[in-house]
Amino acid sequence: MNNFTFYNPARIVFGKDTELKAGSLIKEYGTRVLVHFGGHSAKASGLLDRVIDSLQKEGITVFELGGVKPNPRYSLVKEGIELCKKENIQAILAVGGGSVIDSAKAIAFGALIEEDVWDYYLYGKAIKQILPLGVVLTIPAAGSESSTSTVITHDETLIKRGLGSPLFIPKFAIINPELHYSLPKFQTACGIVDMSAHLIERYFTQVEHNDLTDRLIEANLKSIIANALPVLENPTDYNARAEIAFCGTLAHNGLFSVGRVGDWASHSIEHELSAKFDIAHGAGLAMIIPWWMRHVYKEGLYKFVQFAQRVFDVQLDARYPELIALEGIRRLELFYQSLGLDTNTVSLPIDEEVIHEMTEKIFVARDSQTLGFFKPLTRDDIKAIYRSANQK
Amino acid sequence: MNNFTFYNPARIVFGKDTELKAGSLIKEYGTRVLVHFGGHSAKASGLLDRVIDSLQKEGITVFELGGVKPNPRYSLVKEGIELCKKENIQAILAVGGGSVIDSAKAIAFGALIEEDVWDYYLYGKAIKQILPLGVVLTIPAAGSESSTSTVITHDETLIKRGLGSPLFIPKFAIINPELHYSLPKFQTACGIVDMSAHLIERYFTQVEHNDLTDRLIEANLKSIIANALPVLENPTDYNARAEIAFCGTLAHNGLFSVGRVGDWASHSIEHELSAKFDIAHGAGLAMIIPWWMRHVYKEGLYKFVQFAQRVFDVQLDARYPELIALEGIRRLELFYQSLGLDTNTVSLPIDEEVIHEMTEKIFVARDSQTLGFFKPLTRDDIKAIYRSANQK
Repeated sequence: MNNFTFYNPARIVFGKDTELKAGSLIKEYGTRVLVHFGGHSAKASGLLDRVIDSLQKEGITVFELGGVKPNPRYSLVKEGIELCKKENIQAILAVGGGSVIDSAKAIAFGALIEEDVWDYYLYGKAIKQILPLGVVLTIPAAGSESSTSTVITHDETLIKRGLGSPLFIPKFAIINPELHYSLPKFQTACGIVDMSAHLIERYFTQVEHNDLTDRLIEANLKSIIANALPVLENPTDYNARAEIAFCGTLAHNGLFSVGRVGDWASHSIEHELSAKFDIAHGAGLAMIIPWWMRHVYKEGLYKFVQFAQRVFDVQLDARYPELIALEGIRRLELFYQSLGLDTNTVSLPIDEEVIHEMTEKIFVARDSQTLGFFKPLTRDDIKAIYRSANQK
Repeated sequence: MNNFTFYNPARIVFGKDTELKAGSLIKEYGTRVLVHFGGHSAKASGLLDRVIDSLQKEGITVFELGGVKPNPRYSLVKEGIELCKKENIQAILAVGGGSVIDSAKAIAFGALIEEDVWDYYLYGKAIKQILPLGVVLTIPAAGSESSTSTVITHDETLIKRGLGSPLFIPKFAIINPELHYSLPKFQTACGIVDMSAHLIERYFTQVEHNDLTDRLIEANLKSIIANALPVLENPTDYNARAEIAFCGTLAHNGLFSVGRVGDWASHSIEHELSAKFDIAHGAGLAMIIPWWMRHVYKEGLYKFVQFAQRVFDVQLDARYPELIALEGIRRLELFYQSLGLDTNTVSLPIDEEVIHEMTEKIFVARDSQTLGFFKPLTRDDIKAIYRSANQK
């Protein structure tokens, strides 16, 4: 186990009607608040009105900026930064899912600097302060509501990059599972894959002796698997929605990173897919993770055996650990398929040229010439993964 | 699942040599610091010197108050409060286990009020502020290093009472598993029981639909069980010590309380044992918990079946759930025995008069006429539990 510091001061306010507390919670941080959101659904459902009403009841002056799209764009971030500077915004309330929250995080630190925010994403520059940020979560998936990270896509180059800092942890996250009832089945499924990926990226580490966090990650994965089909079959099952929502938050709040070094190669490999083809991040992860696993499992066979046995209860003959490992990967793949998602990229127009282009983009402005930690991937490794995911 | 708020801003600084950061961490909160500790071991091991040295290097004026005993006493708390007031102490650093931390918590809020601190414990009065508190943890057990609670014993009446508030969460907790190498085997074992009890008290709830937290608690219990014997057999096994230490912290940081109502009757029943006989809290819990379980399991048989199957892998015939439940309890009892602890009270001079006295003391200044939530215990229930634990 590596030395670590764990610190996550996000206040998780969870349950029915909790969005009505948005005003009293954000008021602690200012009286001029930017409410940042996505498309029409927040307005159409009445959620945005309820939230803004709760702010106005507290005497808060509300500014609105909507229009965040999946794979949130840098251009809207710039617009938000200008608005914050012009209107002396004191705090930001993100009403949405991971894209809205990530966009709000970018605006929240851009509002306090003069330089180009994109440089921070591209070169991983350290940030020093951000505007206080609160969240009303409408899509359980990215875990951004209590995470240290934000991912933005550049409009012109379509380069997609993440940036991390403890400062990005929101002050509070309001999570009402009832707000997730109206999510389309596909979006719910993509969210489920995304949160499972946050656990898998942490689980597969070369740092040994992380017994407690291994088991906690397995527990979280098992709860996702146990509640995924119930929530897809009955979108208004409060308890299943609640489990999935809290699973997504815990999966990415940092607790399961302690004492280890996560991999995160699959995330980068997927980012190029979703940046190029504008597909949902979770859909892309379902296409990539099983193939990443098959490419790397020999680098830590015991860990894949443990995954298969503990998460999927694979009980094959212990003399054949490789079969056990591969069966675990197959069951994960079947789980993703059971959510109605593709576990390969054959539906996308990918050829050798595209594979080359995506692989090279991963290394733009990246110091290292390899990707990930479980097995540090070379360009050839990455191309092999893209190719195996694309087998017709 | 119940609505909940989860907020735990304790900074966990974990690993080798981390006690050397005590000075830089506490300096953020003041330059006149009370270092609170227990007996000779912290001095003899050189730990106290290292910690005080790290404070003095930061220019901090250090005041010392040692002498905290297991089942920490109100008289020393009063002494600490007077010292804080006289010397204008700005922050407190607890160097020790749960008793030292709990005593420091009492001092930290007593220093800021004029009233009698004991009244707060006895009547559960709400506290409003405390001095900033940091911790260097020497005994993994109570979880007080990031918990909301403190337990103090009154010197004269020997009444032992807990008090809870989010304000009691320490600002930081330094946890270096190497500092636990020198713990006697018995004390290590008692700590292991204590942390298991914090999980069990939360696990057995009548609130349904807590799938994720059920699984996380099971994972934490399994990690305790997996690492307990290694740490007892090889006290300098860093990785096993690290697992046990982090298990103890997570068991009581509040994450596993969300969405549910814990029981906590066993804690109160035990508090009377350790207050009267001055035995270790963990030793008392091992004597009580199996008997509490046998007294209450019929009130939620499915939960005891789940406990047996998931924590202890009991695979008895599903047609006989009661046998499965009882076998789970027996395996927990065997686990406690494997740590070298008694799972009954026959070594203590307990008779009907003592049972009556302890039972009545539980209800002193308590509003409710029952104890606990899984099965609200009457005085007769409590006496029955004391009696079954005391069967010769």
